[in-house]
Amino acid sequence: MLKLSKEEQIFLKNFTDLKSKSGSHSPSILTLLNDEGTGKKIEVDACFLSNPYATELFIEFFEKELVTTKLLNQIIEAYPPQNREIALHLSKTINVPADYIFIGNGAIEIIQAVIHNFVKGKIVVNIPTFSSYYEYVRVKDDIVFYQLSKESNYCLDVQHYIDFVKKESPDTIVLINPNNPNGDYINKEVLHMMLTELSFVKNIILDESFIHFAYEDLNLSMIDSYNLMNDFPNLIVIKSMAKDFGIAGLRAGYGIMQPEKVNYLLNHGYLWNVSGLTDYFFKLYSREDFQRRYDVVRKKYIMNTLMFLNELSRTPNIKVYPSRANFALVELLDGSDSREFMIKALYSYGIYVRECSDKIGLDGQFIRVASRSFEENVLILNAFKDILKSEKN
Amino acid sequence: MLKLSKEEQIFLKNFTDLKSKSGSHSPSILTLLNDEGTGKKIEVDACFLSNPYATELFIEFFEKELVTTKLLNQIIEAYPPQNREIALHLSKTINVPADYIFIGNGAIEIIQAVIHNFVKGKIVVNIPTFSSYYEYVRVKDDIVFYQLSKESNYCLDVQHYIDFVKKESPDTIVLINPNNPNGDYINKEVLHMMLTELSFVKNIILDESFIHFAYEDLNLSMIDSYNLMNDFPNLIVIKSMAKDFGIAGLRAGYGIMQPEKVNYLLNHGYLWNVSGLTDYFFKLYSREDFQRRYDVVRKKYIMNTLMFLNELSRTPNIKVYPSRANFALVELLDGSDSREFMIKALYSYGIYVRECSDKIGLDGQFIRVASRSFEENVLILNAFKDILKSEKN
Repeated sequence: MLKLSKEEQIFLKNFTDLKSKSGSHSPSILTLLNDEGTGKKIEVDACFLSNPYATELFIEFFEKELVTTKLLNQIIEAYPPQNREIALHLSKTINVPADYIFIGNGAIEIIQAVIHNFVKGKIVVNIPTFSSYYEYVRVKDDIVFYQLSKESNYCLDVQHYIDFVKKESPDTIVLINPNNPNGDYINKEVLHMMLTELSFVKNIILDESFIHFAYEDLNLSMIDSYNLMNDFPNLIVIKSMAKDFGIAGLRAGYGIMQPEKVNYLLNHGYLWNVSGLTDYFFKLYSREDFQRRYDVVRKKYIMNTLMFLNELSRTPNIKVYPSRANFALVELLDGSDSREFMIKALYSYGIYVRECSDKIGLDGQFIRVASRSFEENVLILNAFKDILKSEKN
Repeated sequence: MLKLSKEEQIFLKNFTDLKSKSGSHSPSILTLLNDEGTGKKIEVDACFLSNPYATELFIEFFEKELVTTKLLNQIIEAYPPQNREIALHLSKTINVPADYIFIGNGAIEIIQAVIHNFVKGKIVVNIPTFSSYYEYVRVKDDIVFYQLSKESNYCLDVQHYIDFVKKESPDTIVLINPNNPNGDYINKEVLHMMLTELSFVKNIILDESFIHFAYEDLNLSMIDSYNLMNDFPNLIVIKSMAKDFGIAGLRAGYGIMQPEKVNYLLNHGYLWNVSGLTDYFFKLYSREDFQRRYDVVRKKYIMNTLMFLNELSRTPNIKVYPSRANFALVELLDGSDSREFMIKALYSYGIYVRECSDKIGLDGQFIRVASRSFEENVLILNAFKDILKSEKN
């Protein structure tokens, strides 16, 4: 079992104070970096679920096309284009009619919009999950949790889930695919069967924010569920751009839903809801030169992640849960406390991981580790091995 | 009366098509610039209500502090700080306790948040106005328009308004100060009297998005109403940063309201609702070196605007309505059509003005003209004089 040094204990206190000031979720790395008492320690942000190679790619285009030109001034000064206009660009890229597309200031804005505007009764949320899916629900009595079973590695037991939903008969269900925080992936065939069985549910929210990291074939072909929109009008697909494109700071996401829903949202809000830089990103994403480059960094990162998780799973005293996303849920098996593990990794190794003590639906001590660049993953692996070995002393 | 050439008529058609595709409000200048048929013509965007000197100032800091450093990468890659954390910076700058501050992705997000979460019945909206204040109301029957009278130059007849509100006894009223689209300004003393008389109204939304351009003394001291929050807990002040700081493309705004209201919003949404660049802006705004520089460009722009509107009012065949904002409402007195005027100014002079035929509550042909830089204002003035003179031919 892990023990903290005196310095690490002081650091834990500082960290806790900072967290209480900065809102829910983990303190952002920017906050930590700006804080004298803590930030100087961070070397690898393994809290942060994004493809660093894609960030590099975006920055390359940004510097080439914006920084050395007058376009940046225009993007900062002028009102950005509105939702429907950006949807036109994206439409060609993802092959979905523009009137099905709602552009969001990050996926989180779309989650909020859908929950506040379309969820009108009981909502089934699988736990563990991304907490906004229940935090944003205004009537707490409407929330019904479906506990993913630890015995099944927190993977969805599909038939059990279908029976549960049929019994509960909710207004809305939420599926995150791959799931956050564990990375469990429902394949296309199973998903189609589930949607067929659950066609009576008014809204099926399918969050595909991590889908660019999933794969079903050796070509690592890109997956999405947009072709299901015609057969399943109750489907609402939500997609973040923060993870796959490594641009969380820009705020960009989209939702795919029936045109009536898009119209309802745009008729009551969401004027200029994304920045000029987000618009620039969506324009870039519609360009073939960018898409070709992106496909390379996406596949490179998937393979990088595969190697990393494979190697991580060989570390003693932890269990790495099966994942087809760019992160893994890791259980500490020797009685160590997840917050203390996080603090030791950060203070003594500069590795910032997400500890999961605030995640409901997890039974045990868990952290979530993101895959980063190859070099950063080596640092993460070495730190883990070192911490878990040093415990014996 | 104004006549369009054949080329101008074709241009009008293209412009109308573009507008129908791009959502409500005027097509953004970025759209126009990117459109083959129209964009090449724009030289001065006098639609756009912002201080160009402040944009230059922000870009100067941005280039110095971000572009040549690694900070930009971090801002793009990492999740931005959350609402409460940004509020801490702003708190010192505007001298308001942080728990009264809600940070918004532009003022428009705050308008939407307030209308959707706190307006629970009749809402009195003065017309002409900024259209989102009634468009965002979901129950259209709740909207009661208060018509500002043309005889009073669309200025608020304070006693008449108070009597109207007392008679209607609404849940919410909206005051924009200075008002958009005409720039009428209610001074602090009158405002205090109005709030005292109308203390029975549950929500008083006070939109001060243009207040940095207003003044009550020769020092052009900055005005705000935050000191009224203690006496009037029903007050909700909304503030855009797009106009005074010339950064519409970033999306930044804030609302000042009772802590319970801020808590309610943050407990049900608005996680990571602004970008990392918006956070950078708010940090900058909290710095004295930036504030000192900003004060200079603010005053320079106010004086520039004063000269511009004074000169504009001498142009024949138009009436310039009194304004203490950075724009003026202009009535075409000779029977010219406002859309045709806008097209001629854009096509033949490169001047893009806001025509107001879609604004409810205006009786006549109106355009709204923004003050820009000194040099751009000269171009606007010359174009207006030329168009209005050439009409006689």
